[in-house]
Amino acid sequence: MNSKGLAISMGDAAGIGPEIIAQCFALHAADMRGSVVVGDVATMQRALAVHPATAQWHVQRVEQVGQALDMPTNTIAVLQVGDALPAVPWGQVHAAAGHSAGLFVEAAAQLALQGDVSAVVTAPLHKEALHLSSRYQNYPGHTELLQACAARFAGQAVEDMPVRMMLANPQLRVVLVTIHMGLRQALDAITTPHVLQTLQITRKALYAMLGREPRIAVAGVNPHAGEGGLFGREELDILLPAIVQARSEGAHVSDPIAPDTVFMRARSTAHKPGEFDVVVAQYHDQGLIPVKYDGVSDGVNVTLGLPLVRTSPDHGTAFDIAGQGLADPSSLWQAIAMARQLTSLTS
Amino acid sequence: MNSKGLAISMGDAAGIGPEIIAQCFALHAADMRGSVVVGDVATMQRALAVHPATAQWHVQRVEQVGQALDMPTNTIAVLQVGDALPAVPWGQVHAAAGHSAGLFVEAAAQLALQGDVSAVVTAPLHKEALHLSSRYQNYPGHTELLQACAARFAGQAVEDMPVRMMLANPQLRVVLVTIHMGLRQALDAITTPHVLQTLQITRKALYAMLGREPRIAVAGVNPHAGEGGLFGREELDILLPAIVQARSEGAHVSDPIAPDTVFMRARSTAHKPGEFDVVVAQYHDQGLIPVKYDGVSDGVNVTLGLPLVRTSPDHGTAFDIAGQGLADPSSLWQAIAMARQLTSLTS
Repeated sequence: MNSKGLAISMGDAAGIGPEIIAQCFALHAADMRGSVVVGDVATMQRALAVHPATAQWHVQRVEQVGQALDMPTNTIAVLQVGDALPAVPWGQVHAAAGHSAGLFVEAAAQLALQGDVSAVVTAPLHKEALHLSSRYQNYPGHTELLQACAARFAGQAVEDMPVRMMLANPQLRVVLVTIHMGLRQALDAITTPHVLQTLQITRKALYAMLGREPRIAVAGVNPHAGEGGLFGREELDILLPAIVQARSEGAHVSDPIAPDTVFMRARSTAHKPGEFDVVVAQYHDQGLIPVKYDGVSDGVNVTLGLPLVRTSPDHGTAFDIAGQGLADPSSLWQAIAMARQLTSLTS
Repeated sequence: MNSKGLAISMGDAAGIGPEIIAQCFALHAADMRGSVVVGDVATMQRALAVHPATAQWHVQRVEQVGQALDMPTNTIAVLQVGDALPAVPWGQVHAAAGHSAGLFVEAAAQLALQGDVSAVVTAPLHKEALHLSSRYQNYPGHTELLQACAARFAGQAVEDMPVRMMLANPQLRVVLVTIHMGLRQALDAITTPHVLQTLQITRKALYAMLGREPRIAVAGVNPHAGEGGLFGREELDILLPAIVQARSEGAHVSDPIAPDTVFMRARSTAHKPGEFDVVVAQYHDQGLIPVKYDGVSDGVNVTLGLPLVRTSPDHGTAFDIAGQGLADPSSLWQAIAMARQLTSLTS
């Protein structure tokens, strides 16, 4: 296990991020030791009162990540970023909370890029609040923000740092070729270069995670993977050329597989090891339906392609329940556990 | 429970149909009592030798369905349809086996339409073999054949007997708006009238099954169900008008729901009852990925819209393993159990 801790960006102060972070510390104290919350001290302080599990916990402001290793019992290390936030009302879009959430992500990324922490785990931010900030109005979300930080750090153009989203739970890993766009638009965005780049990013990231050549399955676009062109030609004309090229580079990649069976085949359970380590899915719902089907609370997002490890829970700020002690910390905890697992193998 | 038995069409003689039918009789003797195989006596006889479970079983030719109620122990009633088949080689496309498989389906449908049996369960036929018969060359598969039988029996045009495919397992029921076509073509085939007709057929069939108004969920077409038009307009322009009309007819139908969460929400487990009785899915893989994800052996197809109950396993003839005793009878048994459940409620 990497001896460095994690940087956990606090997310939007009006959402459930602070309280579920606090609960992860309380429920998994030994595992959280050495990790630091990159956020706002007073907001974390307030979050402790939300749930009985954290009532006996404390917050301590640190100036450097290393101080997190020397925290007293039941104490969360918080690195204050920017000015102290006012008491933002729970569950409301607030410009200062949105702007700060962006700053927290940038600071956490910087710590990881410098090697001060082993990985970044991002608690949810609220996009509407983020976009009220002039600094962040052009960033759709976390991924693009992290991409910009990494490119800046590396002195590269953002275009030269392509990323893909991986969704993972204990049974299945899925990497998406296309993400947030209408299905018709997604079909147009599935091109041979884009699929090939997805295969390359997936291979590199999974190799680093597993310590061996990953077994990559490619989901088809059409029912029965097109059945030889009978139900669409995307498999023959678009996917196969990318697969052939990836194989020539040494990747272990399947032919396009019928979408309705590939996830079942890749799924690992106690009774049946999966046939593949990861499935490359062509569009958002093709990949997310199976990942979420068995229950959303175990799902984790992992951003692939960046020169840092970043995971996040697969839920949002949940403004409707923030501050009420109802939020479930499971997905954030899984994201933390996944980050720990990834960095124990890669460093 | 309906006191009438089921008609089980034998499927292609060269496939796994005969042997898994025999195994269902052997493994579930009490439940199978009174049901009849609509097929070929000699082929069923041969199938008994395939697996040890059926080695002590016998086949008896019957002339009428009612005779199946008086079978001796360990005896399968078989209604001979057409001429006796030759010994068709296992695992090969054979014109006589294909033609006969079509005749078996027609005969079984006729029994159900006349009320001689409570339902039809169809063992798999082989489409290539079926199409070698001039009588069946224009029928893509079971569904269209059953549709034609039912229309003929009712004196209606086939166009006036629209059907939809439902996939069901113990946790989830899914009805498909579009089926076997490329994804681009499927997007064009999702129209307001077609969605409305799907909702009407689903409502009527599920009402008959459940004995109450079913809770119908509608899956969106696009990620996040389009997020208010941001990721595609099909939800607003196509699905919603159909939903509004179905509601005006009294149906309990959801708004379009994000595809990546609707199946999870509808799923029923021992720990969590589903929020919906059935999900209307817009395209083949959207519906089949979740149905199959947890393991294919429990899956059942149910044809909705016909004036008869028809179920089938969700696998094919499996020519590669036919006659070897390797075939799994689980899905056929689930199809039989589903047919029994459906007819116990509807009659």
